[in-house]
Amino acid sequence: MPHIPLPEGLPGIRGPFAFRPETAKPMCELAEILLHTPGTLSPADRELIATYVSSQNDCYYCQTSHGAIAAHHLGGNDQLVHDVKQNFAQAAIPEKLKALLTIAGKVQRGGKNVLPQDIERARQEGATDLEIHDAVLIAAAFCMYNRYVDGLATWAPSDPATYRERAATVARDGYLGIPSAALRAR
Amino acid sequence: MPHIPLPEGLPGIRGPFAFRPETAKPMCELAEILLHTPGTLSPADRELIATYVSSQNDCYYCQTSHGAIAAHHLGGNDQLVHDVKQNFAQAAIPEKLKALLTIAGKVQRGGKNVLPQDIERARQEGATDLEIHDAVLIAAAFCMYNRYVDGLATWAPSDPATYRERAATVARDGYLGIPSAALRAR
Repeated sequence: MPHIPLPEGLPGIRGPFAFRPETAKPMCELAEILLHTPGTLSPADRELIATYVSSQNDCYYCQTSHGAIAAHHLGGNDQLVHDVKQNFAQAAIPEKLKALLTIAGKVQRGGKNVLPQDIERARQEGATDLEIHDAVLIAAAFCMYNRYVDGLATWAPSDPATYRERAATVARDGYLGIPSAALRAR
Repeated sequence: MPHIPLPEGLPGIRGPFAFRPETAKPMCELAEILLHTPGTLSPADRELIATYVSSQNDCYYCQTSHGAIAAHHLGGNDQLVHDVKQNFAQAAIPEKLKALLTIAGKVQRGGKNVLPQDIERARQEGATDLEIHDAVLIAAAFCMYNRYVDGLATWAPSDPATYRERAATVARDGYLGIPSAALRAR
């Protein structure tokens, strides 16, 4: 049961979004820019970073929902998402993404863990300054979203089909419609 | 030296804000609502929560800048800010704020640490659902801001007078002007 009364039937972060639409708006705008707006990192790569950080933070709702979105972008490749969460160094992903995941994992444990050699390695694998910036901020932002979801003890569906279905919508439409959808469902 | 080339002379989070104004905008809007927009928790209380979480995350820039803003709201009471960071349970603050700081400290270590009895205690001390929600989200959000600042190895001034001066401006004007000021300074 959530720690504060949240609108029923809204899973994960969507409950607090409906409870406090003022803060939902900038939080969804940030997710939109970091994960969905076209950029040089693919949405799949960015969702994988979000999923990995959420799994390191042990946030079931975020790792499952963003994992499903990543898998959707990857043509339904749930196995790759699983592999990245388990041990990205051995996963079938480019070296550049491995270097960015290394940085993201260090940010998850605390910003000061990121060392000049981590940045150097990412650059050698072809990462731009903007890509390094965004990997750091995606990791930092999911340290917020994850704590928000679990700090309020929100409810998460257990059926993977629910996440798959919703992932298709979010992968297509992005994050900006989520606050108003949460309000309508309230 | 910052991990990526950031505009010179902009301390802490203002460097990355100028580097990436698209993400600065929602991040400042979130800070504005959580810390500055009038609410039932005073700006001083909310800045103290932000300062405490930033100190637990060992983020020098954020704990010093928000600590200075908290002290400004408290009529220059630097000692109280110091006491809250050192051991809020013994500080001269109301029991309700102690209960909210307890929740914030648990969120900082990970959302699942928050227990029903922590919420119950806050309610007994008079905290509303919205105040509990905001304490959780302030703590979660500063786990983002702190990691953003330190994950990019931003530069922080060491002179306390710099923070005091700026605190007066932010305490009065809030956070919405920061992204455009950072862009002008770039």
